[in-house]
Amino acid sequence: MRADARHNRERILQAARQAYAVHGIDVPITTVARRAGVGAATLYRHFPTRAALITEAFAEQFARCVAVLEEALEDPDPWRGFCSVVDKVCAMQATDRGFTAAFLSQFPDAIDYDREHSRAEKGLALLVQRAKDAGRLRDDFDPTDITLVLLANSGTVGESQHVSLAASRRLVSYLLQSFQAGHADPLAPPAPLGLHQIHKLSPRRDRPTAGAEV
Amino acid sequence: MRADARHNRERILQAARQAYAVHGIDVPITTVARRAGVGAATLYRHFPTRAALITEAFAEQFARCVAVLEEALEDPDPWRGFCSVVDKVCAMQATDRGFTAAFLSQFPDAIDYDREHSRAEKGLALLVQRAKDAGRLRDDFDPTDITLVLLANSGTVGESQHVSLAASRRLVSYLLQSFQAGHADPLAPPAPLGLHQIHKLSPRRDRPTAGAEV
Repeated sequence: MRADARHNRERILQAARQAYAVHGIDVPITTVARRAGVGAATLYRHFPTRAALITEAFAEQFARCVAVLEEALEDPDPWRGFCSVVDKVCAMQATDRGFTAAFLSQFPDAIDYDREHSRAEKGLALLVQRAKDAGRLRDDFDPTDITLVLLANSGTVGESQHVSLAASRRLVSYLLQSFQAGHADPLAPPAPLGLHQIHKLSPRRDRPTAGAEV
Repeated sequence: MRADARHNRERILQAARQAYAVHGIDVPITTVARRAGVGAATLYRHFPTRAALITEAFAEQFARCVAVLEEALEDPDPWRGFCSVVDKVCAMQATDRGFTAAFLSQFPDAIDYDREHSRAEKGLALLVQRAKDAGRLRDDFDPTDITLVLLANSGTVGESQHVSLAASRRLVSYLLQSFQAGHADPLAPPAPLGLHQIHKLSPRRDRPTAGAEV
């Protein structure tokens, strides 16, 4: 790729990340192009589909998630590792609207679910098992509960980053306490959820969208 | 009102409720009119604004919420009353996409927030205090945590009613356990949330919406 093409590509990605973080992934492609200072044709040459742009724009954050999980797996205290994954991923979700959407995306092509999600699921399952073996995570915690946390946390993501983060932190602190071993009461059965299935729950037409008028 | 006008009004409301339950409140008004078998002009004569139609369509469900709260306040066991409010309202939220949206609506006119919400908040605050006094609800439970539950629960509402309800029930069972007295670890501080503020968290542009394409 020539230097000016690389430069344009980088500008487009940066503009996309900023726009997604503030407005979510529904931002029109033309807005991203305008913010990047390139024409729509240039944008399409680099990213022929919306999914390609989203995947690339969030590659860094997905890498961060993977790193968070790997760090947790290296923690000698598996419960602390487990808590740090939930904490950090939920905080990322609460502060970047675009990230949430990419995670919850209805476009199966937007992210390489098969590879990334099965990798994440395996690592999480290992962490969950270790935290149970250590006697800190309750035995009836189900791997699908990780998805449940992400879904519940997505509900706290709103207009204000400040409020979203505070709500997310409070929710996570409640949930982590309820995940600890030592609770005697039975839970409702696990829901049929998986990281693979998250995007199938969308679209959420029950959410009012801007400009929805009679 | 003449009999045929009353009849039309009822048909419009029924069509609106059905459409909202399945597709959420973003359903076009023209779709509601078509389902009701009336013209758009007739619909507008009865409900001059989108907000008026939403308010009227959900009046019954809001009344049910009020009844749930009143029943709970009459329960001699305030903790059981508290749990039943959380259980029932979350189940309503999980099974009716339109209801969620009306609750989380960004249209302050859609519901009489001032009256309904301050009434709900007072009743809930009383129930919370009684459950604390009974030694069952943890002392650091904050009234804003009710809103937190509704927000978190809204995150479980997706395409499939079956999956949504299972996810909601599982989440609620975790949260109710974490709300019980006897947890020693401190929580993250309460988030600045209130039933009054829920609608301000919307619109959630981070949610992919149907038909959002390049």
